[in-house]
Amino acid sequence: MDDPLVIAGREYSSRLITGTGGATNLEVLERALVASGTELTTVSIRRVDAAGGTGVLDVLRRNGIDPLPNTAACRTAAEAVLTAHLAREALHTDWVKLEVVADDRTLLPDPVELLDAARTLVDDGFTVLPYTNDDPVLALRLEEVGCAAVMPLGSPIGTGLGIRNPHNIELIVARSRVPVVLDAGIGTASDAALAMELGCDAVLLATAVTRAGDPVRMATAMRHAVRAGRLASGAERVPKRFWAQASSPPR
Amino acid sequence: MDDPLVIAGREYSSRLITGTGGATNLEVLERALVASGTELTTVSIRRVDAAGGTGVLDVLRRNGIDPLPNTAACRTAAEAVLTAHLAREALHTDWVKLEVVADDRTLLPDPVELLDAARTLVDDGFTVLPYTNDDPVLALRLEEVGCAAVMPLGSPIGTGLGIRNPHNIELIVARSRVPVVLDAGIGTASDAALAMELGCDAVLLATAVTRAGDPVRMATAMRHAVRAGRLASGAERVPKRFWAQASSPPR
Amino acid sequence: MDDPLVIAGREYSSRLITGTGGATNLEVLERALVASGTELTTVSIRRVDAAGGTGVLDVLRRNGIDPLPNTAACRTAAEAVLTAHLAREALHTDWVKLEVVADDRTLLPDPVELLDAARTLVDDGFTVLPYTNDDPVLALRLEEVGCAAVMPLGSPIGTGLGIRNPHNIELIVARSRVPVVLDAGIGTASDAALAMELGCDAVLLATAVTRAGDPVRMATAMRHAVRAGRLASGAERVPKRFWAQASSPPR
Amino acid sequence: MDDPLVIAGREYSSRLITGTGGATNLEVLERALVASGTELTTVSIRRVDAAGGTGVLDVLRRNGIDPLPNTAACRTAAEAVLTAHLAREALHTDWVKLEVVADDRTLLPDPVELLDAARTLVDDGFTVLPYTNDDPVLALRLEEVGCAAVMPLGSPIGTGLGIRNPHNIELIVARSRVPVVLDAGIGTASDAALAMELGCDAVLLATAVTRAGDPVRMATAMRHAVRAGRLASGAERVPKRFWAQASSPPR
Repeated sequence: MDDPLVIAGREYSSRLITGTGGATNLEVLERALVASGTELTTVSIRRVDAAGGTGVLDVLRRNGIDPLPNTAACRTAAEAVLTAHLAREALHTDWVKLEVVADDRTLLPDPVELLDAARTLVDDGFTVLPYTNDDPVLALRLEEVGCAAVMPLGSPIGTGLGIRNPHNIELIVARSRVPVVLDAGIGTASDAALAMELGCDAVLLATAVTRAGDPVRMATAMRHAVRAGRLASGAERVPKRFWAQASSPPR
Repeated sequence: MDDPLVIAGREYSSRLITGTGGATNLEVLERALVASGTELTTVSIRRVDAAGGTGVLDVLRRNGIDPLPNTAACRTAAEAVLTAHLAREALHTDWVKLEVVADDRTLLPDPVELLDAARTLVDDGFTVLPYTNDDPVLALRLEEVGCAAVMPLGSPIGTGLGIRNPHNIELIVARSRVPVVLDAGIGTASDAALAMELGCDAVLLATAVTRAGDPVRMATAMRHAVRAGRLASGAERVPKRFWAQASSPPR
Repeated sequence: MDDPLVIAGREYSSRLITGTGGATNLEVLERALVASGTELTTVSIRRVDAAGGTGVLDVLRRNGIDPLPNTAACRTAAEAVLTAHLAREALHTDWVKLEVVADDRTLLPDPVELLDAARTLVDDGFTVLPYTNDDPVLALRLEEVGCAAVMPLGSPIGTGLGIRNPHNIELIVARSRVPVVLDAGIGTASDAALAMELGCDAVLLATAVTRAGDPVRMATAMRHAVRAGRLASGAERVPKRFWAQASSPPR
Repeated sequence: MDDPLVIAGREYSSRLITGTGGATNLEVLERALVASGTELTTVSIRRVDAAGGTGVLDVLRRNGIDPLPNTAACRTAAEAVLTAHLAREALHTDWVKLEVVADDRTLLPDPVELLDAARTLVDDGFTVLPYTNDDPVLALRLEEVGCAAVMPLGSPIGTGLGIRNPHNIELIVARSRVPVVLDAGIGTASDAALAMELGCDAVLLATAVTRAGDPVRMATAMRHAVRAGRLASGAERVPKRFWAQASSPPR
């Protein structure tokens, strides 16, 4: 029942990847991360650079959580590639969550720049986990250039709209040979459970926890939700029927 | 974080109520019930009557699970009232899950007969937990005649269609002063999580577990899902937005 | 392509039944009714009673639209039956749109009072068109006591939430031998088209038109939408598929 | 009420663009096209090339319908550009519906190849109407390179799944300064009405009509549906409410 998540050869028993964005209090963040059970957490390289900004890294280190540097707010392939290199030097990891967003209003990935950056970073020896839209073709292309996972959105970052297009996620899962991580849009626990039921291998979320009224409680909810969805996805659910069916034999 | 479910003065730490219908193997059923963490489980009085049919009761007894006799397959108030009385005598409990269904194809409750039966049984000293449709008015009427909880469906019994009308469930929750238990229609874990997020106090399900390919695994999924949904419902989720919002501060 | 709607022996070429509630201007109302193509329109008997309140009836008369008195705002069977009798005297019609609502916040029908009133009015020789919730059992019961049609809601009156539970509407349609009229909840044109595609025989709406920014334009939209849905429902739509299918033969 | 659709300076009174793919009978196709009221219809250049394959063009010509050559089944920018040039020569039009699909199972556009082809064709003087996925960023990029419209899918070609992600369509509409045409996925009339209500300027469909049981009837349905949706989108619909609101003033 407890097969690990494997990405690029690393094994994780938790299938919940978290972000630190949106956190307003380092102490609450730490408790939330611990409550979530996460073993892999994104960090913004820009924060790491800032003086005193290493607090998040200390939190991760003392809780045995791997840092996953991201290229948040990068707009071009060149900028993202540079940021990834800086992160590699600063954090001594060649893993990178690749984000190349097109604009501030949608924070949606720019497909062309994203694919360019992914190709370059793979060639540079990075383990690339790209944040992508839910386009099944772009997901395939990212896999083809050597990404270690694909991370489609459920809905735009910070919207809390959940999984707007389950059909696309199913199409991605059906054809992917690398892990699929649902990234962005999760608003509440049932969204995370659904992601796993659709066949995703993991869920990545940040503000659903950090900006919830009670981050620690929501982190605990998400831990249970991801586990629930994973278990359900492997338990062969009952089929959907139009007419009712008695659970007890008729009299 | 762990307030108990209270129905008619009894406290339960689990908010997952299970049914035994659809189970084909008593040993698997037992393992599933234990995995689900349930403390209250419905039993069909007709099965209990049958010679050798007490196997389910033994399972419940040795696992410390309260039996909740139901009036499954009853078609009229009179029939349901009689069945409830038989159950009280046989099981020494005045709790009853009241079902009065209209026909075999939908297994939907007959609102008039249901309300009649509920009134009679409350007068007879029963603790009545009625299985009802998702009509907010009928739910109120059942509360008014003294039911200890209301148990609206998500979708017809055995369909696995989940919660077809979340708006009605929210309307019921908004006005109910007794516990609301989502009963019927649950197909998978995210359905159960959603029920709790809508404000239900508990979830009742049977075939989603007993007829799943792997009942024990699905039972575990449901335990986590109900817990996830309960926690999320009290954690003040992030609002839904049309446009994106960065989790990290802009550069 | 143009089979008429038949209710209790009367034939209508339009399948859009309108209400007059919510209208703030009699002249705009008249233009909207004409634009909608409706041939049957509900009127509140209370308005008709009021001095000078016959304006709506004049509008209907000069446009050849049948009036359908309703029992809006009645809370008990007795009150609704009385109102129906007053309407019959005032309007010289034994047709009545039967409404018996439970409370002001939901305006949902009280199932027990509704069924009582329907039974009485059928016995009194009325042609009864009951506004009901979307419970397939109550719809059957209303048909069994002799109603000439059943009129389930899509969502509560005035919410504009469309059809919250298409499955219930399909269940009602599958078993009904009298016309099914989708009544209440319609917000926009696609809602009306969907109602017809689900198999309804007609659509009844009021505030979707009268409270729209441009009532005449929305009335025209609804006329087209009902026609579109009716035609589509009889044209055997393409099946839904998971994978794509080329419209042109492959190269 | 009847503002025309304007694309690249050409005006159309119909907002329904049709395809001819999937048609099995030229006579039925002609009646369906006429019934739909369309004034612009896609044709596969490969069909036109074939001897005797000009039947469709004759049908369009005698009914005053503009042909819109497409590049169906092209897999690369180079192939699509070549096909467009052949079409321009054969049909004496510089309009082209640009399709560059990634594979046969999804028939989804390849975003990189599509954008390349669009850029080249615009430079070559074509009026380019690209079939795209529902990614709001790709839609913007296509507009930036000079496309005369953007044509996002509702769901993959031939699936009949309708509009899987209304949020994305709304995001595209909110930022587009060229006409937005919903292309692909339409299954029935309410889908087409919804597309227009979301703010699309037109709808393009083929197999929803050609493969329906009754193509002529479905074509008529679609004509009404597009008109209904267009009217509704400009009529300022009523807001959605959680609680009911009486249409008649309370007693």
